[in-house]
Amino acid sequence: MRLYDYFRSSAAYRVRIALNLKGLTAERAFVHLRKGEQRGESFLALNPQGFVPALVTDEGAILTQSMAIIEYLDELQPRPSLLPGDAAQRARLRALAQLIACDIHPLNNLRILKYLKQDLALEQAQIDGWVTHWIAEGFAALEAALGPTAGPFCVGNNPTLPDVILAPQVFSARRFNVEMKPYPTIRRIAANLDAHEAFAAAHPMSQPDTEVGN
Amino acid sequence: MRLYDYFRSSAAYRVRIALNLKGLTAERAFVHLRKGEQRGESFLALNPQGFVPALVTDEGAILTQSMAIIEYLDELQPRPSLLPGDAAQRARLRALAQLIACDIHPLNNLRILKYLKQDLALEQAQIDGWVTHWIAEGFAALEAALGPTAGPFCVGNNPTLPDVILAPQVFSARRFNVEMKPYPTIRRIAANLDAHEAFAAAHPMSQPDTEVGN
Repeated sequence: MRLYDYFRSSAAYRVRIALNLKGLTAERAFVHLRKGEQRGESFLALNPQGFVPALVTDEGAILTQSMAIIEYLDELQPRPSLLPGDAAQRARLRALAQLIACDIHPLNNLRILKYLKQDLALEQAQIDGWVTHWIAEGFAALEAALGPTAGPFCVGNNPTLPDVILAPQVFSARRFNVEMKPYPTIRRIAANLDAHEAFAAAHPMSQPDTEVGN
Repeated sequence: MRLYDYFRSSAAYRVRIALNLKGLTAERAFVHLRKGEQRGESFLALNPQGFVPALVTDEGAILTQSMAIIEYLDELQPRPSLLPGDAAQRARLRALAQLIACDIHPLNNLRILKYLKQDLALEQAQIDGWVTHWIAEGFAALEAALGPTAGPFCVGNNPTLPDVILAPQVFSARRFNVEMKPYPTIRRIAANLDAHEAFAAAHPMSQPDTEVGN
């Protein structure tokens, strides 16, 4: 397998975590988003959307969209399962993951912040307000949703799909200085994720292409 | 099963389509989003996020997030499959669905448009520009991604998960008067979806709670 990756991409970070949890290794190719390599001809031939991550399977299939890639990895290597349980339990795990991946993350990625700044000419304070508003609204919903079943991880005693999606969102929230006090469950789980080897090894600040600063 | 529904919610519309494709019926409860019923105590007790759809299963599990609900329905009633094929083919179907559900839809729903208008005090022309920008960018990516495998439907001869997600997005694009000429593949598929009984029966304009106008 070959993973097209960028250290600071939240979506690529999710896939790195899933690979580590599964004990799978992928060859790595780095696409420098700040330099615009995702819009270069060679990468667009692979993924016309110009987004990382992309995963090329051993059979040569090109997979895109991080949650789809992670479900592929979960089918390829079922243990440890990222979606354990019966159909309703699996739906709950997917729903927690999608609360982050559909309702929080899409509002705060690089292309959106660029549009707010360049196309709408918003002030930096308005852009910061936008980011913190959507993360705070999403984390409040997630905190409530986690309540009934959270253990050391989002659901129970082992990391599952929502934990894989949560760690990069918490990393992003910290970068944007979002106040985490109102979310004790998320903070507790995030501390456990920080300490977990598979998550630590996937961290944006410890990748081969990591750059410090902006 | 009981579906908490609102005729114009794109996410609820997806679940209605999936139920119809599976030949499943659910009792319906209507949550009037324009009147703010999603923020009422009784609905928040069910889904603290205050979003429709929610599905209460026959065993009493409360499911949220439309794609998670649809995968639940696909596991509950495997035929006809919304995710046919091997792991890589399933990943491709999920990726096409997520291109819409993660990269287009979240940017244009009601709470975002409200924030642009009320919190950022943008002009209506800027808000319209925002909506058409993200739908156009997303549809361009989808058109390119569909190219290799589109048949009468997104992938092959039968509706699958991406078709379930596409129909509501096309409905939304038409409402916002997005120019559809640049997307011949999407237009062709959308015409087939319009003509398909399961999709037509789920259409926002033909539900028990449908209201005409805004």
